[in-house]
Amino acid sequence: MAKGRPVVGIIMGSQSDWPTMRNAAETLEQLGIAHETRIVSAHRTPDRLVDYAKTARERGLKVIVAGAGGAAHLPGMVASMTPVPVFGVPIRSKALSGLDSLLSIVQMPGGVPVGTLAIGRSGAINAALLAAAVVANGDDAAARALDEYRAQQTAGVGETPLDED
Amino acid sequence: MAKGRPVVGIIMGSQSDWPTMRNAAETLEQLGIAHETRIVSAHRTPDRLVDYAKTARERGLKVIVAGAGGAAHLPGMVASMTPVPVFGVPIRSKALSGLDSLLSIVQMPGGVPVGTLAIGRSGAINAALLAAAVVANGDDAAARALDEYRAQQTAGVGETPLDED
Amino acid sequence: MAKGRPVVGIIMGSQSDWPTMRNAAETLEQLGIAHETRIVSAHRTPDRLVDYAKTARERGLKVIVAGAGGAAHLPGMVASMTPVPVFGVPIRSKALSGLDSLLSIVQMPGGVPVGTLAIGRSGAINAALLAAAVVANGDDAAARALDEYRAQQTAGVGETPLDED
Amino acid sequence: MAKGRPVVGIIMGSQSDWPTMRNAAETLEQLGIAHETRIVSAHRTPDRLVDYAKTARERGLKVIVAGAGGAAHLPGMVASMTPVPVFGVPIRSKALSGLDSLLSIVQMPGGVPVGTLAIGRSGAINAALLAAAVVANGDDAAARALDEYRAQQTAGVGETPLDED
Amino acid sequence: MAKGRPVVGIIMGSQSDWPTMRNAAETLEQLGIAHETRIVSAHRTPDRLVDYAKTARERGLKVIVAGAGGAAHLPGMVASMTPVPVFGVPIRSKALSGLDSLLSIVQMPGGVPVGTLAIGRSGAINAALLAAAVVANGDDAAARALDEYRAQQTAGVGETPLDED
Amino acid sequence: MAKGRPVVGIIMGSQSDWPTMRNAAETLEQLGIAHETRIVSAHRTPDRLVDYAKTARERGLKVIVAGAGGAAHLPGMVASMTPVPVFGVPIRSKALSGLDSLLSIVQMPGGVPVGTLAIGRSGAINAALLAAAVVANGDDAAARALDEYRAQQTAGVGETPLDED
Amino acid sequence: MAKGRPVVGIIMGSQSDWPTMRNAAETLEQLGIAHETRIVSAHRTPDRLVDYAKTARERGLKVIVAGAGGAAHLPGMVASMTPVPVFGVPIRSKALSGLDSLLSIVQMPGGVPVGTLAIGRSGAINAALLAAAVVANGDDAAARALDEYRAQQTAGVGETPLDED
Amino acid sequence: MAKGRPVVGIIMGSQSDWPTMRNAAETLEQLGIAHETRIVSAHRTPDRLVDYAKTARERGLKVIVAGAGGAAHLPGMVASMTPVPVFGVPIRSKALSGLDSLLSIVQMPGGVPVGTLAIGRSGAINAALLAAAVVANGDDAAARALDEYRAQQTAGVGETPLDED
Repeated sequence: MAKGRPVVGIIMGSQSDWPTMRNAAETLEQLGIAHETRIVSAHRTPDRLVDYAKTARERGLKVIVAGAGGAAHLPGMVASMTPVPVFGVPIRSKALSGLDSLLSIVQMPGGVPVGTLAIGRSGAINAALLAAAVVANGDDAAARALDEYRAQQTAGVGETPLDED
Repeated sequence: MAKGRPVVGIIMGSQSDWPTMRNAAETLEQLGIAHETRIVSAHRTPDRLVDYAKTARERGLKVIVAGAGGAAHLPGMVASMTPVPVFGVPIRSKALSGLDSLLSIVQMPGGVPVGTLAIGRSGAINAALLAAAVVANGDDAAARALDEYRAQQTAGVGETPLDED
Repeated sequence: MAKGRPVVGIIMGSQSDWPTMRNAAETLEQLGIAHETRIVSAHRTPDRLVDYAKTARERGLKVIVAGAGGAAHLPGMVASMTPVPVFGVPIRSKALSGLDSLLSIVQMPGGVPVGTLAIGRSGAINAALLAAAVVANGDDAAARALDEYRAQQTAGVGETPLDED
Repeated sequence: MAKGRPVVGIIMGSQSDWPTMRNAAETLEQLGIAHETRIVSAHRTPDRLVDYAKTARERGLKVIVAGAGGAAHLPGMVASMTPVPVFGVPIRSKALSGLDSLLSIVQMPGGVPVGTLAIGRSGAINAALLAAAVVANGDDAAARALDEYRAQQTAGVGETPLDED
Repeated sequence: MAKGRPVVGIIMGSQSDWPTMRNAAETLEQLGIAHETRIVSAHRTPDRLVDYAKTARERGLKVIVAGAGGAAHLPGMVASMTPVPVFGVPIRSKALSGLDSLLSIVQMPGGVPVGTLAIGRSGAINAALLAAAVVANGDDAAARALDEYRAQQTAGVGETPLDED
Repeated sequence: MAKGRPVVGIIMGSQSDWPTMRNAAETLEQLGIAHETRIVSAHRTPDRLVDYAKTARERGLKVIVAGAGGAAHLPGMVASMTPVPVFGVPIRSKALSGLDSLLSIVQMPGGVPVGTLAIGRSGAINAALLAAAVVANGDDAAARALDEYRAQQTAGVGETPLDED
Repeated sequence: MAKGRPVVGIIMGSQSDWPTMRNAAETLEQLGIAHETRIVSAHRTPDRLVDYAKTARERGLKVIVAGAGGAAHLPGMVASMTPVPVFGVPIRSKALSGLDSLLSIVQMPGGVPVGTLAIGRSGAINAALLAAAVVANGDDAAARALDEYRAQQTAGVGETPLDED
Repeated sequence: MAKGRPVVGIIMGSQSDWPTMRNAAETLEQLGIAHETRIVSAHRTPDRLVDYAKTARERGLKVIVAGAGGAAHLPGMVASMTPVPVFGVPIRSKALSGLDSLLSIVQMPGGVPVGTLAIGRSGAINAALLAAAVVANGDDAAARALDEYRAQQTAGVGETPLDED
């Protein structure tokens, strides 16, 4: 795992969110940005939530990435207790495919923001990339890594569609 | 206001929710059930939220009615910190008419329940009636008041529709 | 099955709802709360519905948990004929994934409340937990069982996500 | 009002549904088909509902038109207690514009049908026209009236749009 | 197949709708009501559509049941060209699960009604039952068959849910 | 009105669609493209629909723009009876704000295309612009007019937002 | 592949869109209309997007068919940079089944049109047919091929549904 | 306006978005964070879009806040051409109340992130607060201003709801 004191905290409401949220961790790893991963359930471990959010800044986090599904309260509640920017990842839910997760995260009232990404895997990757972009504002190595990631991504797009891919 | 120690707590995320939530207070008043009303914003006053929820049982509350709109986290977060039954009222939101409020309240994960009522005024009235029904399980006066309320309601339904009503 | 006269009635519109609703029964069993299970179809057995609802209080029920799918009328119709609090569980439907079930249950008009839980299995578990919380208002054993359930639930949340779970 | 024993019953859950449902009554009046109008609330007057539905056939009704909004249970519950064909009109609701009404009426389980019309005024008119078409199967005067209505309707469509209409 | 001149026409937009619509045919068969089945594509065979609709009454049809999916125009277009009552069955579509089919069928403008049933198999069964109820208004044998069907249906609902069913 | 034999036909289901569809006519007028406007109701004037669609090509139309609302069948039915390209404009409906119109128009089955524009006024303007682009493929004057329109549009976008506009 | 300079450009946001978009290519092939296929990602290859769109007319394209999913910006962005008519195909997305793709493509502001087809495979086929209809305005061979395609399609619709198909 | 070289760029697709987006500007002004405001239409001024996005970093922007409605492509297209973090504000649209704007902005594919805020005014305020939180990572004055803003916000929440507010 990328070395050094974590600057990005990746949290999720449940172990079952990990197959989605690991994409965030892997993307940060690829970019060499130090991070931590924790399970913090807004509903089942509210005390842990308070503790995690209130200590985030002093522990050096520059960004928090929070994934949750259904009535997804984790990102918004963390955002209510820390000035650190919070990015939310709506986990795809069983019945409503993550539409409930999305609305529960994105429709925050004025005053407490959560920057929300797409439902599911794409959102987890993008939360990491957005976190990296924020970190890159004060970290040249992160900026270079991100530029490189984007350049490779562009280079990797084929010119014509292929029948067997 | 109905006398005695409050057995129902009515809370809401914002003063702007009061025109909806006062319907809950008025219904309880009509039934003679002692209650309290508070503004508790999950996002702007998270410490108040924790305090309110954690002291609810010891202060004698039998039911909490919580109204909130948009990314409505209040009912679920209160439910995460108290064993007292929580009923949620989705406030009608501007852009999405309360569909966001509804999904944010009702789609709680297994383990932490919120009994959810209809969006808006009907939901506020019904949260009070449901609270009364819960209180009535151990309070004969409340049970009689509720029976009377329901009987009057039935009696008040006209037989035929009228052109001028 | 938990002994004694049932205080919670679990009903559902069809045998096909049982894989969902058995989660409610198992949760109550775990909490030691006496309950009964019945199939009551609002549409196919309307007389049974009337009979079940109208005798609920005298038979000692403190809460009714009703699960139904699609144009889900069971919870609301039971609530129209008994003062006992009714909690509704929207069963996940084939075409619309339970959104129809949810709206058919939760959007009750002012005057007749149904406390609605999440779509599907989570909702069934939570209906039982909410029923237990209501029962616990007048039953110390139930209160202790519920506290224990919640404490174990909190203790069971791991600190960090694991790759193989 | 059209003379004779009513063959179509128009019922609605509340006086507040009348501004919509009167369009059904007026359409039948225009066609000369005898009908009756009643308020029957599934939730507030369940006994009246049972009585109305169970006596419908013997009282000579050939069709029942039922309008209801929100968690709209009236059409389906009537259909569960009478073999007379039931047509449902979803009343436009405040928060969800009648989408809840529509799904609550149309998504009936296999075995108990409700023929559902459009949300609101168009649906009320069309419920009457559909009722007339059913009556017309055994009533030549009704058939002629309906043919006339349709012919006039077709003739009334202008050729080109006009700026001032 | 039930003998005699067909009184119910079952049509559908495509062979691929048959697995759904055959439930309508089988239900009518069970009730002994003579019917016919045809593929009539509003979009691919518009001339057949015009011909089918315009000859429906003279050929003795009392009801038309029309199933279609996606931008489902068949039921409404048939209804525009015949006074015979039309019942529509929204076929479950791939991307939108039949919500598109439902809205395309049910939201007819005032003047041309289509009685719409539930999405998919339940809707097909119910379209047949509703057709039977209409036929039964003038056919005692059909009325008795329908009463019997409903009685058996009620009798077939078990009292308690079973683990293995 | 732009002179010459019409190359674009603008049709709509009802006079009430004209306030939306006149935006299409005015845009074509601005571009100097000859067009005609007609009311053609799929449901109330099906014969006119058949006639209009079947004669479209021989009368010289290069594009048909069709606006309709609710269960909007006009664009698709026209497309089923002419090889001329059809563009559909979903009219904003009362209850569902045009979501029903949109899905009824856009979700055509494979084999019969309708190019669908945005709900309401924007869609009407854009249907005209798209029609112009099609006409422009074989008409240099139209191509120049369209280029000019687009250039002016780009030039008309201010650099900074103004408080009083 | 159909010979000659391409008159239709088929582009898509990703190789993963090809299983859907190849239906467009195959349909044009069947009609003998020369076309090209390219991957142009609005987000990952924005420069390629600008280049493709700005050179489209001079390279002889008469129509561009663009498929994209999720926050689908490709069709609209191409349309902003070329006067050539653009038809959009919403690719079915994982979480929201293409509803996001559809709205992202169809709800273009007045001034820049995209003719939008159905979600998924049907939409890809229809985009090709609509492109062919546009090309056919100035190409008799294409017109004949399209007429033939439509005639065969009509002829291929069976009269009655078959149990084994 | 806050002095110094702008570190936050606020852009929007149209002058008509300003009543919403000015809330972002005013919030940054209140926090003393230097910013600029521009109209950049993805569809009507694509060249301006390319220019704005490609020069953003070198001009010193640390965050871009982009508001757009309907098929809202501005935030995502900017994000495709700059490494600077982009936050999107879905403008409430006429027909679909901003649901189209929300999905068009938030559902970005993996690789190009846009942190999305709530629909409308709340989202504009929150985009500014989130931008401030990002800036605050490397700017103590901004951090103090944000802390103060949050403290005042918490202090401003009344204890009990008032009838006249």
